[in-house]
Amino acid sequence: MASLIRDRSGSTAEMLEIFRDASLLKAAYTFEAALARSLGAEGLLSASDVALIVSACDAPSVDIATLAAEAAHAGTLAIPLVEHLRDDVASRSGTAAEGVHRGATSQDLADSVLVMQAKHASVLIDSTLSRITVALARLAQTHIATPMIGRTLLQPARPITFGLKAANWLLGIDSAAARFRTERDGATQLQLGGAAGTLSGFDGKGLAVAQRMADALGLSLPAMPWHTRRDRIAGLGAALAIVAGAVGKVARDVSLLAQHEIAEAFEPTIAGRGGSSAMRHKRNATGCQVALSAALRCPALASSLISGIPQEHERGLGGWQAEAPVLAELFALTHGALDAMAVVLDGLNVDPSTMARNLQSTGLGDDTAEAQRLVRRALEHHRKAR
Amino acid sequence: MASLIRDRSGSTAEMLEIFRDASLLKAAYTFEAALARSLGAEGLLSASDVALIVSACDAPSVDIATLAAEAAHAGTLAIPLVEHLRDDVASRSGTAAEGVHRGATSQDLADSVLVMQAKHASVLIDSTLSRITVALARLAQTHIATPMIGRTLLQPARPITFGLKAANWLLGIDSAAARFRTERDGATQLQLGGAAGTLSGFDGKGLAVAQRMADALGLSLPAMPWHTRRDRIAGLGAALAIVAGAVGKVARDVSLLAQHEIAEAFEPTIAGRGGSSAMRHKRNATGCQVALSAALRCPALASSLISGIPQEHERGLGGWQAEAPVLAELFALTHGALDAMAVVLDGLNVDPSTMARNLQSTGLGDDTAEAQRLVRRALEHHRKAR
Amino acid sequence: MASLIRDRSGSTAEMLEIFRDASLLKAAYTFEAALARSLGAEGLLSASDVALIVSACDAPSVDIATLAAEAAHAGTLAIPLVEHLRDDVASRSGTAAEGVHRGATSQDLADSVLVMQAKHASVLIDSTLSRITVALARLAQTHIATPMIGRTLLQPARPITFGLKAANWLLGIDSAAARFRTERDGATQLQLGGAAGTLSGFDGKGLAVAQRMADALGLSLPAMPWHTRRDRIAGLGAALAIVAGAVGKVARDVSLLAQHEIAEAFEPTIAGRGGSSAMRHKRNATGCQVALSAALRCPALASSLISGIPQEHERGLGGWQAEAPVLAELFALTHGALDAMAVVLDGLNVDPSTMARNLQSTGLGDDTAEAQRLVRRALEHHRKAR
Amino acid sequence: MASLIRDRSGSTAEMLEIFRDASLLKAAYTFEAALARSLGAEGLLSASDVALIVSACDAPSVDIATLAAEAAHAGTLAIPLVEHLRDDVASRSGTAAEGVHRGATSQDLADSVLVMQAKHASVLIDSTLSRITVALARLAQTHIATPMIGRTLLQPARPITFGLKAANWLLGIDSAAARFRTERDGATQLQLGGAAGTLSGFDGKGLAVAQRMADALGLSLPAMPWHTRRDRIAGLGAALAIVAGAVGKVARDVSLLAQHEIAEAFEPTIAGRGGSSAMRHKRNATGCQVALSAALRCPALASSLISGIPQEHERGLGGWQAEAPVLAELFALTHGALDAMAVVLDGLNVDPSTMARNLQSTGLGDDTAEAQRLVRRALEHHRKAR
Repeated sequence: MASLIRDRSGSTAEMLEIFRDASLLKAAYTFEAALARSLGAEGLLSASDVALIVSACDAPSVDIATLAAEAAHAGTLAIPLVEHLRDDVASRSGTAAEGVHRGATSQDLADSVLVMQAKHASVLIDSTLSRITVALARLAQTHIATPMIGRTLLQPARPITFGLKAANWLLGIDSAAARFRTERDGATQLQLGGAAGTLSGFDGKGLAVAQRMADALGLSLPAMPWHTRRDRIAGLGAALAIVAGAVGKVARDVSLLAQHEIAEAFEPTIAGRGGSSAMRHKRNATGCQVALSAALRCPALASSLISGIPQEHERGLGGWQAEAPVLAELFALTHGALDAMAVVLDGLNVDPSTMARNLQSTGLGDDTAEAQRLVRRALEHHRKAR
Repeated sequence: MASLIRDRSGSTAEMLEIFRDASLLKAAYTFEAALARSLGAEGLLSASDVALIVSACDAPSVDIATLAAEAAHAGTLAIPLVEHLRDDVASRSGTAAEGVHRGATSQDLADSVLVMQAKHASVLIDSTLSRITVALARLAQTHIATPMIGRTLLQPARPITFGLKAANWLLGIDSAAARFRTERDGATQLQLGGAAGTLSGFDGKGLAVAQRMADALGLSLPAMPWHTRRDRIAGLGAALAIVAGAVGKVARDVSLLAQHEIAEAFEPTIAGRGGSSAMRHKRNATGCQVALSAALRCPALASSLISGIPQEHERGLGGWQAEAPVLAELFALTHGALDAMAVVLDGLNVDPSTMARNLQSTGLGDDTAEAQRLVRRALEHHRKAR
Repeated sequence: MASLIRDRSGSTAEMLEIFRDASLLKAAYTFEAALARSLGAEGLLSASDVALIVSACDAPSVDIATLAAEAAHAGTLAIPLVEHLRDDVASRSGTAAEGVHRGATSQDLADSVLVMQAKHASVLIDSTLSRITVALARLAQTHIATPMIGRTLLQPARPITFGLKAANWLLGIDSAAARFRTERDGATQLQLGGAAGTLSGFDGKGLAVAQRMADALGLSLPAMPWHTRRDRIAGLGAALAIVAGAVGKVARDVSLLAQHEIAEAFEPTIAGRGGSSAMRHKRNATGCQVALSAALRCPALASSLISGIPQEHERGLGGWQAEAPVLAELFALTHGALDAMAVVLDGLNVDPSTMARNLQSTGLGDDTAEAQRLVRRALEHHRKAR
Repeated sequence: MASLIRDRSGSTAEMLEIFRDASLLKAAYTFEAALARSLGAEGLLSASDVALIVSACDAPSVDIATLAAEAAHAGTLAIPLVEHLRDDVASRSGTAAEGVHRGATSQDLADSVLVMQAKHASVLIDSTLSRITVALARLAQTHIATPMIGRTLLQPARPITFGLKAANWLLGIDSAAARFRTERDGATQLQLGGAAGTLSGFDGKGLAVAQRMADALGLSLPAMPWHTRRDRIAGLGAALAIVAGAVGKVARDVSLLAQHEIAEAFEPTIAGRGGSSAMRHKRNATGCQVALSAALRCPALASSLISGIPQEHERGLGGWQAEAPVLAELFALTHGALDAMAVVLDGLNVDPSTMARNLQSTGLGDDTAEAQRLVRRALEHHRKAR
């Protein structure tokens, strides 16, 4: 919402970078250049016209603020962007001007740009997920036999080990990560269909052009344009929200363990982080806070993507236009949550002696042989899942 | 919400049957009987005690209203249900009474019952999905060359064929169905962990008992109990909501095509359906209404499942208790939507001549060669996907 | 969702009673009888025909299961219900048969029944809200000077008193209650408009008939039928969800205070409640569990009501049909939460000595003069607000 | 989400301006300056120290990017912002440095800034609401007797007039606007409580300081700090989402009326707006698109605010931090919707002759006396409501 301060507090600089205007426009020009090249390769545009268009895409003449205002006025980014591109080449070649965006429609550009951004963003999600699972597997292994209270309904129940708790976190992240990867692969499809999704603007070579573009952009080619098949965008959004939930589960537990009276685990001490503007003595669970905020916001965002699936006819009114900022927000918040908890888990201060003391005070005993067996089983599953 | 009239208007009798109390209790007793048998098979309970428990599960002495009131009072169904079972066998055998529910906790029963119901419910979802895709593939094939207006942003754009529209619906359903099947398989896991999820109540034979139970109940065995790994319940819920969205997309289009001034396709005429209490002449889009209602309600239900993922510690407070009625509602609504649209699509009245006339009035031409090519490609994808 | 066991665990018997089929039908027949009487009073129906209809409404001939199946088939309850009523009087008087439901449409019946149920349900909500605020005001007064740790971001911050915590809960409930009462008053409007909402079926006496009906049913009369002005249903739903949130806030705090290591406040001990099927020693926060589940489920339900506002033209397709079960669920869950926490707060076990000991262990001091001043101020506000 | 292009397409430049970083920081410094002045007025800070702080607030030394990074690191904006302010005055006066932010906590700043922004934003909402109701009242009056088809369940039902449709839109907006204004007044409360919400850092003069600040900032003074009473933020969010729904209802109808085959009303023609990148002949419903997108996204955003109400203890972890960007988004989207539809309604092209022709084709007659009576009644209500 146009506030760097608020955006940064829930996400990461790298992720925000992927969704900012410069990146969006870069993807848009990459799309248009790839279209020109594909048209050229299929003999629908001359090599020199292709070169003109590609070169205009490399150095567009219009600035972001102008485009933003024009796009808001036009109701779509494609119209002003394409017009500026056409103007940029028109003085050199009339056929190049006609070749710009040929066969494509606004939504082709918008959707393809969105999934290109999603693909880049997924790399960050993926690598931070890996960082977290490495940390969790290490914690599970290290503390396989560290006894603590197992708590149910917020009450002491039976002894477990901290390794079991970490292993449970790990399997939750693994499961959410697997779903995310499947949905990412399914959703990152080229959008190219033209006005009504029939690929009618390519002299019968639409599928060939589309295949070339998909290859060039690193996207898959759907059976048909997916202008009003939005289940995969919704599925990806839901998968991100579930990842945020799985990492939010870790944050929930860490923040509860860090309560003063429990004091069994704490976020690492980091200079300048987790302080209080009123209480210099405090050490707040800042990483958990970021993850819990994300886990609160993401489910609703996912639901609005699912709500938007029943879009009208061949291309809908209002539905797909609502998706890009929501999916971007889901990536931003989920990565913010993952990154914050990666820092927390990498440096988690575990206090086995307090765990033991708290457990003793309950009189629940400390037999953890079964718990340890489950940790070993979980770690084996984790290794196989990779 | 305890109203058969309201429930029936959004779902089907078969699906409501799966989630009503009698079925819930049947699943609960099946769980307890399977537990007794598995304990017996692992030498933890004598054959005669197993027989006593199984027989008590076959003919429980308590009625639904009593159990409902006692469960509401206790905060969980397991406590009164298990107590009644124990009472039923206690006079015959003290060890059998102790063997009832041995090693299990309330949530083991609740979660396993939920996924047992989900498994049954998924059979209905699956078969109605198939019925819909058969109808859609037929429509796509039959109307592969039936020209009509392709509409974007609710305005005429370019010619398509009705087969293309049907193929687009088909691919949307196929994609949603594939996600649903994956999530169904992932979510239908046995829950058995005991008080803190360590399988500590089985003399070291917990995994063996669990494997036997999973086999008996037709569920998979997770790496560890999933008491606070709720991503798969949420994933299944999201997948159902997405199915409702994909079928809602079909309903959106059919209801728009059925407008008086467009009149290109109509729901089949069915005696007593789609009338108006005020206007005897009307034929309302009753099937579409059911599907659109479901598509409106399901996304929010899915979001509450995702919101509930960050549950506390080893078993949470309030989170998992919120899931069963929500997942049940998602199955009910999604099946209601699928069933309603299966009827609509099986008997859809398509009017090619009005389609042609409407198209002509736009002056957009009627070249649909590209559209037909895409239909063939889509049908090929559909056949491979099965 | 047709499961008494699951419904009862999140609501109350009284509230479920209001929304069950028998009550729904009673409201429906009350509507039809009031319509007949109003038609009679305006000279549109003879006194004897009115009497015939009223008497048929008092003793309808059709059972619930039949109506449910017929309503599901017809797409609306009104059609079969009205047909049975007509059949019931037709043998005695043809004009009475024509007078049944005269001028009304299906949605008039459905919406009026819904707000009639909402009005009854609101009485329960209101009285349980009052019970809770009485308990909270008492706790605030009693513990105005009971020192305890003020906790922020789940860490000790500064001393407060338990009275301050209770006063904060109280003001939160007061604020949510005020919103609820405003929305209840706004939403409980008669629906009567006929086929297209013009009151055209009453020989020019539509407003007079409507005013009589509104008076008879205890509803207000809107400026125009509200067939597609759904903001008040959504507003009432949101208000209920916010009440559930405000009481969920209390539950969140109580459940955190009841943690074994904190042990500052506990739910009252109630025989047979809060036990564990696996651990006989446990005392679970069962009341908090109910409230937290409601607070998890209600926001999404409210969002689906808001999502449904943009309904088509004079009466929408799928939108209003989705509302009744959702609003019913919101009433059920909110009352379940309120009732559960009323029990908790009426008997809350507060442990001032543990509060003092925990506070001492933090070294934060125990000056609470300012906190006490705020409690007094809050109680004054509370008294004025009533 | 940091994309001007995407933000602008769903909102307005004026509204985005209110929530951008510069405005946020201006509000933050206004808060800190008002605090200093209030401390001075109550004798807690010398006049010269007040002047130093106020002057530092007028010309802060730190830039946005630095603050954003530091705030993300610290977990709250207040810490780095206050530190820079302290540094700015420390060289001139040690007591002034101590006086900066005295008695306040991070959340005091964050919440007060949020409601200050909300108050500014509400002025825009309010004035655009008025612009819309003026347009709607005019349409209702002008077309009080313009006959058209009344459509229910997307089918022709009975004759209405276009004035009746406009009057229905008008009453829906009026009702949503009234709720919004109530919630705005309730939510724009000063937040000042200090570390644990006890106003303990003001030598017993906390309420006096708070009253002065509230007056200075144009906010109301709550009975107690509302750190964990979030119902009013949620209520405001829900009210905004309902406004977006009410205006989305207008957009739904206009877009349906603008269908080629119905052609009864159209958005005004505006140069450069509503075109298609692929089809130069098209005139898309761009204003409706913006409003329908908002109506799709806002309900879920509101639900995440309601979900966040149960925040822990005296100040929560993750809950309140999640609210500001969500509320900002709700304002942005709702204003985008209102502004877009204000343009549409100001210039709506109504085609009475097509309305009449379409109505004739249904054979439903054209008696609209009752409809006209309702329009007059609705306009009277509207006038009284102002």
